[in-house]
Amino acid sequence: MRRLKTVAIVGVGLIGGSFALAMRRAGAVARVVGVDRDAQALERAASLGVIDTAAESASEAAAGADLVFVSVPVRAMGTVLHDVALGLGPGGVVTDAGSTKADVVRTAAEELRNRLPQFVPGHPIAGRESSGVEAATADLFKGARVVLTPGPDTAPEATALVRACWEACGARATEMPAEAHDRIFATVSHLPHLLAFALVSEIVSRPDAAELLGFAAGGFRDFTRIAASSPEMWRDVALANREALLDEMDRYSARIAVFRELVARGDGPGLQRLMTEARNARRAWPGGKRSSSDE
Amino acid sequence: MRRLKTVAIVGVGLIGGSFALAMRRAGAVARVVGVDRDAQALERAASLGVIDTAAESASEAAAGADLVFVSVPVRAMGTVLHDVALGLGPGGVVTDAGSTKADVVRTAAEELRNRLPQFVPGHPIAGRESSGVEAATADLFKGARVVLTPGPDTAPEATALVRACWEACGARATEMPAEAHDRIFATVSHLPHLLAFALVSEIVSRPDAAELLGFAAGGFRDFTRIAASSPEMWRDVALANREALLDEMDRYSARIAVFRELVARGDGPGLQRLMTEARNARRAWPGGKRSSSDE
Repeated sequence: MRRLKTVAIVGVGLIGGSFALAMRRAGAVARVVGVDRDAQALERAASLGVIDTAAESASEAAAGADLVFVSVPVRAMGTVLHDVALGLGPGGVVTDAGSTKADVVRTAAEELRNRLPQFVPGHPIAGRESSGVEAATADLFKGARVVLTPGPDTAPEATALVRACWEACGARATEMPAEAHDRIFATVSHLPHLLAFALVSEIVSRPDAAELLGFAAGGFRDFTRIAASSPEMWRDVALANREALLDEMDRYSARIAVFRELVARGDGPGLQRLMTEARNARRAWPGGKRSSSDE
Repeated sequence: MRRLKTVAIVGVGLIGGSFALAMRRAGAVARVVGVDRDAQALERAASLGVIDTAAESASEAAAGADLVFVSVPVRAMGTVLHDVALGLGPGGVVTDAGSTKADVVRTAAEELRNRLPQFVPGHPIAGRESSGVEAATADLFKGARVVLTPGPDTAPEATALVRACWEACGARATEMPAEAHDRIFATVSHLPHLLAFALVSEIVSRPDAAELLGFAAGGFRDFTRIAASSPEMWRDVALANREALLDEMDRYSARIAVFRELVARGDGPGLQRLMTEARNARRAWPGGKRSSSDE
């Protein structure tokens, strides 16, 4: 890809910071401008060398940027895109890193208006338990998948630029409609998060929760790891992707009812058949081995 | 504790083999006799130095043993305890390592008859993903919890001996009634296993399962790790602990219904409140950090 003159990072946390570091390391950008509503985080980003310059506002950061990378909580997306649109030049491209896409597409249509063709919705499937710019690393996206959901209005050259940037960061980009993205991630990410929160929530509602947790071991630990995630983020994801998530909850509840019936009837062969199918699929899944990255 | 002359291990796999190695390392036993229905596993146990002598049958192994450690699948427990009773002397003590306890207590009452006071039901909360005697290690129980569920018939000196052996292996023993054990483990172990199997089972039932799994990341990986467990073992656990597990499934389904209602209503504060309670409890749980041991 051509070397970009300026990339603006709006929201300099783990994801935005890692994107800046990866782009720098690839030699894909000359100058990184950052902006964050947390002034101290912005200072740390500058002192860590993640950004070259701190801007006062998203519109100031977007002015003159070849690429604006928006990595803020989904609930802040409207305000941020509104500000970005105020500064964005006709040649600038905007992308985001939100976990849900249909709602971001709707927000972008409202806020970006005539700049909408310059916006490429995106979702990098990467993350880690620690957050903040201190945890940012140029390797975060190495081998990770990124889903881009350009719509009928999106300029093909904008999509091509964002794809090239992700590839420079070591990621593999896939394109699909925003609705398909949201259905897939309701299944493989949003539902499991909600299920893990629900299990811990059920246990802590009991008077003997401490005793119960005292006997919990490694299976429980891994099953509930994602229940230590940000409640604000997952509340927003659940509400932003409500319809798909409700479908997933209903499918899952129906499957639990099937297992319940097998247990109640004492149907050993039936239980074993479903468990074996699941075990085989889980063991065959190439993503099943532990690595340092997660969503 | 006094040094035991002979310990018999019935079922020389990960758990039985690790118990033998830990007892040896503690200098708590002079001679280890092993028996296994898998003749090759028994040979490997001897060549690895896990056992000194291979016996032909559980009754032969039990004859003259100070302690008989039964680590076989719960479904084999009846036959094995029947054989153990045939050989066991009046001074021998028997314990087991099954994941459920009330069913083992019932089986023991039927099979051990006048030897029942010599039986101490036990459950070490340890394990790992690999199985078999090759994976056995003297460290497996270091710092692990072990639950003992002696009943009114159990001789106190038998319980004291089993407790001393576990402490020699580095474990911490807790006593409780078998029914209390089964309720606790239905909550913190049996239910999560069934939930993980159910999630993968639901996904693999779909025509686009492969595409879905292609986008699954670290949260899904950890949530479903236990769905790679033995279907035979977890089928048996689910059926052996049926009543407690059905209760847990009903409580969990009710909690899922609460979350579903909050999502359907778009109740952000309600969702955030339950998720925050769960997040705080999960973060405060001392078992939350990864280690090499699990159940």
